[in-house]
Amino acid sequence: MTVSVEEVFDKAPFIQLLGYVLEDWGEGWVETSLRLAPKHLQQHGYVHAGVLTTMADHTSGGAASTLIPEGHSILTAQLTMHLLRPARGEALRCRAEVVKPGRTLIVTEADVYCDDDHVGRFLATMASIPRPL
Amino acid sequence: MTVSVEEVFDKAPFIQLLGYVLEDWGEGWVETSLRLAPKHLQQHGYVHAGVLTTMADHTSGGAASTLIPEGHSILTAQLTMHLLRPARGEALRCRAEVVKPGRTLIVTEADVYCDDDHVGRFLATMASIPRPL
Amino acid sequence: MTVSVEEVFDKAPFIQLLGYVLEDWGEGWVETSLRLAPKHLQQHGYVHAGVLTTMADHTSGGAASTLIPEGHSILTAQLTMHLLRPARGEALRCRAEVVKPGRTLIVTEADVYCDDDHVGRFLATMASIPRPL
Amino acid sequence: MTVSVEEVFDKAPFIQLLGYVLEDWGEGWVETSLRLAPKHLQQHGYVHAGVLTTMADHTSGGAASTLIPEGHSILTAQLTMHLLRPARGEALRCRAEVVKPGRTLIVTEADVYCDDDHVGRFLATMASIPRPL
Repeated sequence: MTVSVEEVFDKAPFIQLLGYVLEDWGEGWVETSLRLAPKHLQQHGYVHAGVLTTMADHTSGGAASTLIPEGHSILTAQLTMHLLRPARGEALRCRAEVVKPGRTLIVTEADVYCDDDHVGRFLATMASIPRPL
Repeated sequence: MTVSVEEVFDKAPFIQLLGYVLEDWGEGWVETSLRLAPKHLQQHGYVHAGVLTTMADHTSGGAASTLIPEGHSILTAQLTMHLLRPARGEALRCRAEVVKPGRTLIVTEADVYCDDDHVGRFLATMASIPRPL
Repeated sequence: MTVSVEEVFDKAPFIQLLGYVLEDWGEGWVETSLRLAPKHLQQHGYVHAGVLTTMADHTSGGAASTLIPEGHSILTAQLTMHLLRPARGEALRCRAEVVKPGRTLIVTEADVYCDDDHVGRFLATMASIPRPL
Repeated sequence: MTVSVEEVFDKAPFIQLLGYVLEDWGEGWVETSLRLAPKHLQQHGYVHAGVLTTMADHTSGGAASTLIPEGHSILTAQLTMHLLRPARGEALRCRAEVVKPGRTLIVTEADVYCDDDHVGRFLATMASIPRPL
């Protein structure tokens, strides 16, 4: 059976460890949030690029998973993240959308915000695998 | 004072949370490792793309930091990660190198291996900021 | 003196060779077009990825050039192009926008359309060089 | 019938217009060259990013085409180009290699040199389409 959007978040231990929350979703899009804590920071006190990129990637994977046939699975083939400014604040928000659906390749994009700042712009290629993983 | 390569790893809480280990480094390169645990996985039991990308990014930041003047700091401006195959195994290794040093922009690349598999190829633009962060 | 948006197009021989036309622009954005001819094609009869990428890159450079101080110049530091579907048709259109302005780095994005199809999504890092080139 | 590496170059009008020359190839790699002329330049007298990116892309497509089954075709799905320094000189050289072969996705990388300078580092995802185009 295809993994539901909720399961994409609930059954991923790394996502649970970091604390990302699935906020809302529809056909071709997902929104998530993260309450920031010291564990998310790098050596200068900013949110680690890896925390921002993981959020954009996983939210994008969720968005892609809303458009695949029963029995398919999504894997990230390639991702590009632009870090627009150093991120420091209370919480992150992310919205990911499918730019181009496809039978084998799905292009997604995502934006990440830290409080009121636009901190990340993301573009990725998701592979739709024709079997459960 | 410029942050040393050891400090880039020791003082980054997110890096400590995940468990990346600085293995070796020289002028323009850094090598790291990670013993895999359930917390690093996504919903299908593979290592999360975010764990692989964080490793490549942080190891690259370390490589860039070996080439900057006293008082400068490194921030990732942009990164691209290609996930070459699903990663499952005992441990990750990463080697990052500076492709092109520069006064304001440093291009780095990194490869990530899971046991004997080449699982990630990474290319990034690091910004060298002319002040401590 | 800073090169104007018109000069970014008129004084670039490669842009003249291919035939890109500056259609409109404002603060932080530029729109261009290209009437397609056999010279723009690859071996299967589709528009070459290089024609689509050059259009997105040059239009983005134009958009960035609307936001830089007198005496600065724009050079592309890094670009990512996603080719959403094979492009075949009469004409290309492109719109580029600045996602994040900056003193030294400007992040831009662009979309390329072939007739009614969305064929390319582009994200780039432009360097603002503090001198005429 | 699968297009041969020679045909990938000879039958692409855009490649002929620019003047790229197929120099050598083997299983998983291709090398090309380009004698520079005024038509390849941008508004500041440097080689246009589009000329460098087209070379890396087409050489990579050639490299991927050496590894696909009879009857398949290669299309670029996504490309990233890092422009390491402004390019000015007599000639360009490019070498592209397959980083990871695959049934549907092939990851390639390429380096572009202008005379003795390393001017471009490229990473791409090529789609292997199971039919002639």
